[in-house]
Amino acid sequence: MIKAGDLVILYDGRTKFLVKVGSDKFHGNHGYIEHKQLVGKEFGEEIRTHLGYSFVILSPVLEDLTMKVKRESQIVYPKDIGIILVKSGIFPGAKVVEVGTGSGSLTIALANFVRPNGKVITYEKRKDFAEIARGNLGKAGLEKFVQIKNQEVNRKIKEKNIDFVMLDLPNPWDIISHVRDSLKEGRRICCLLPTIDQVMEAVFYLEENGFTAIETVEIWMREILVRKGKTRPEQNMPSHTAYLIFGTKIK
Amino acid sequence: MIKAGDLVILYDGRTKFLVKVGSDKFHGNHGYIEHKQLVGKEFGEEIRTHLGYSFVILSPVLEDLTMKVKRESQIVYPKDIGIILVKSGIFPGAKVVEVGTGSGSLTIALANFVRPNGKVITYEKRKDFAEIARGNLGKAGLEKFVQIKNQEVNRKIKEKNIDFVMLDLPNPWDIISHVRDSLKEGRRICCLLPTIDQVMEAVFYLEENGFTAIETVEIWMREILVRKGKTRPEQNMPSHTAYLIFGTKIK
Amino acid sequence: MIKAGDLVILYDGRTKFLVKVGSDKFHGNHGYIEHKQLVGKEFGEEIRTHLGYSFVILSPVLEDLTMKVKRESQIVYPKDIGIILVKSGIFPGAKVVEVGTGSGSLTIALANFVRPNGKVITYEKRKDFAEIARGNLGKAGLEKFVQIKNQEVNRKIKEKNIDFVMLDLPNPWDIISHVRDSLKEGRRICCLLPTIDQVMEAVFYLEENGFTAIETVEIWMREILVRKGKTRPEQNMPSHTAYLIFGTKIK
Amino acid sequence: MIKAGDLVILYDGRTKFLVKVGSDKFHGNHGYIEHKQLVGKEFGEEIRTHLGYSFVILSPVLEDLTMKVKRESQIVYPKDIGIILVKSGIFPGAKVVEVGTGSGSLTIALANFVRPNGKVITYEKRKDFAEIARGNLGKAGLEKFVQIKNQEVNRKIKEKNIDFVMLDLPNPWDIISHVRDSLKEGRRICCLLPTIDQVMEAVFYLEENGFTAIETVEIWMREILVRKGKTRPEQNMPSHTAYLIFGTKIK
Repeated sequence: MIKAGDLVILYDGRTKFLVKVGSDKFHGNHGYIEHKQLVGKEFGEEIRTHLGYSFVILSPVLEDLTMKVKRESQIVYPKDIGIILVKSGIFPGAKVVEVGTGSGSLTIALANFVRPNGKVITYEKRKDFAEIARGNLGKAGLEKFVQIKNQEVNRKIKEKNIDFVMLDLPNPWDIISHVRDSLKEGRRICCLLPTIDQVMEAVFYLEENGFTAIETVEIWMREILVRKGKTRPEQNMPSHTAYLIFGTKIK
Repeated sequence: MIKAGDLVILYDGRTKFLVKVGSDKFHGNHGYIEHKQLVGKEFGEEIRTHLGYSFVILSPVLEDLTMKVKRESQIVYPKDIGIILVKSGIFPGAKVVEVGTGSGSLTIALANFVRPNGKVITYEKRKDFAEIARGNLGKAGLEKFVQIKNQEVNRKIKEKNIDFVMLDLPNPWDIISHVRDSLKEGRRICCLLPTIDQVMEAVFYLEENGFTAIETVEIWMREILVRKGKTRPEQNMPSHTAYLIFGTKIK
Repeated sequence: MIKAGDLVILYDGRTKFLVKVGSDKFHGNHGYIEHKQLVGKEFGEEIRTHLGYSFVILSPVLEDLTMKVKRESQIVYPKDIGIILVKSGIFPGAKVVEVGTGSGSLTIALANFVRPNGKVITYEKRKDFAEIARGNLGKAGLEKFVQIKNQEVNRKIKEKNIDFVMLDLPNPWDIISHVRDSLKEGRRICCLLPTIDQVMEAVFYLEENGFTAIETVEIWMREILVRKGKTRPEQNMPSHTAYLIFGTKIK
Repeated sequence: MIKAGDLVILYDGRTKFLVKVGSDKFHGNHGYIEHKQLVGKEFGEEIRTHLGYSFVILSPVLEDLTMKVKRESQIVYPKDIGIILVKSGIFPGAKVVEVGTGSGSLTIALANFVRPNGKVITYEKRKDFAEIARGNLGKAGLEKFVQIKNQEVNRKIKEKNIDFVMLDLPNPWDIISHVRDSLKEGRRICCLLPTIDQVMEAVFYLEENGFTAIETVEIWMREILVRKGKTRPEQNMPSHTAYLIFGTKIK
């Protein structure tokens, strides 16, 4: 039974809206729904706006939480988050350092999977981004698994025994020496970078500074529109978001 | 410090080998390493075969655990596992039902992220596959988060309040009515299917049997070989493994 | 030296405009150029609008001719035209039948490469499309290599000894028996179809009606934006236009 | 009716073999066919080896001619040839300069579409490659539209009024000043390069040396295996052959 504070998806058959049940109103294109109408409903039920327009109440998945954040910066896409989850070595209980919180979309994904006993310590030098990320993590109900540090990483950080380091900033090579000691031996770092120039600089830096098994990948996702008698792939897709570099620390 | 029972990756700069430290010998192409030599070493350290060939000891990540399983059936690829993690709605503590364990590669991924308080109940009708999966899960140290049921799903299953249902079998439409009641309202099912004919049949079945927000995707991953002065993408890649269908249960 | 009647590209560093030199004015976003100003200029030279905005005069390539047509229907994309040129078996001198002229973009490509001694006979049942295609072919200067037949193909066509048959209509299976006798033995037919349902129906029809070596392909093209210090792929691309089926006629 | 000297494809339902009808024997996996058996047959007819294994006789298309060459060097793939045909500005009658003949697969494609009144002048510094290319062009029946120059391009070439310049060598920036004067104003050059480092160097060189409208693309082709009840994409595909750079000469 849905109660105040729950996160729900309202879905009208085309678009998903992420709503945290409170005392507010949800405004769709065709009327509004008062949050208190949601309380006591069950997931999977239908609900109507005051104009009679129908939504169904769904449970949000990680994709929703990361895509529906308030954004002031480029977010990390689900296709890229997915491969990070598989290649990072994170697990429930892991301690993760992220540099470059941005809007916190990737932070949400990392926090989701290190809970309940793990932690994400995330550095963001811009105060406005740190505040937006804090809001997004709060909305997702994951703030207690995250420590946001509103500071630049310009000297060695204090964290120790980190299981995974995620660098989502344009110049990771300037940061790696500050975070290297924090990362456990034999474990991974990831750099997310949009240009091939950055990829080259980061990979060569990693190679020369005690990382091995370095690999760089790009990911595409295409939707197939399955419709009776006229199934076909979607006509446009993101053809590039970022390259992902993974490397493993050696002594 | 590495101890008996630990899982390690031995990496020679080209290939990764997954080793569970015991009383055995690891045989590479250029000599062997006795497992007991690994005990007391640190991750990130070098180790040599009796012929002097060098390996470095790394910590395995989920990709290694799922790719290096003993296989008798088609495994699920990291690119596909990644998107399942993002779109399935699983989390540490979740209760998951999987039908079609196969070699257990996806089971390992699900188990890794529902621990420590969650559970994967996985059905496999073939005894040989169930045994292989059991061995693979044991090697990965994840057996206590998984219940393998060596039985066919040919009537309603008993599990209740399931957070995610994963169907990795050729005819999911024959199974959906048996698992539907187990899945919580508002939560997701996923079908993994290699052919477009299966995709159509599954999607139309889901549409007509109480699921919404159905989407079908395919994922590609391409490696970029970053080398000084001659960076280029890999020359061949898997161009198709399977389509992934996601749907959400409604009342 | 450019003269009246020539086709030129005016390029402002971002967008290409296809202009047939006449007695008109070209209107850009920043002023106009009188066509007569182009006469006597050389390709590769700069020209300015009356407001001083600079264009360079380039020679159009096939991509320009096919993409810059007046369009009332879906056109065929350069990536798809390219593979048709390679797999169709056409050559200068070839006799080609096309059914489904549409705006004539593919007709232009076929005409360009069967000239000077070959011919494209193209059927279009809609009068408005036939007129648009005629205009586009005229602008491209290729009308004398094309015969546009404004009629539906609903019985056997009269053409004989055709080197290649191109079917760009939604239901090629209804047409194949009408065009089959026209195609030389051992030579190719191509169907261009957007949905997988159509692909299946067409392929199975071809298999059962005297065609072999049937293959279906899809093509992607991604641009790489090469810029000093920030080279990366374009962020969005067409992920689906149409599938292309090729088959070879046997006795 | 097939006669001596004709090029035919022998197709057994899986593999295509390119045969020039002479006085030889074609050896398949299951017996041989004497070339003289082919004489007098029609395209589209069946023919059997002395062991009764069945082939069908098809007419070769450009893809066959370019893929079935004798190879000593990397060939250019059909997907890449296709986009070159569309973006190069070539046409029947065009005069083309190619540097880097290699095995001549791209030369065959260019020659096919500049005939009957055009010409490809192709430079190859290695004598062995020039000889192989000569053989491949001869087999394809296109040698009279091609002049192979077995020499290095290390100073200005003599050709004038060239419609398209194709550079298929690792260091095009060393050659461009030698071929630039040969290319007509307003017309295109293409560089085919496997690494991104080469792409950057070539693009920046072109930008600074009188070329505009420079674009770099990569192409993928995936086959769809259409089979009753089990249609799916092929499982592996080339994920990288080369990048293609196009630029247009300005004054």
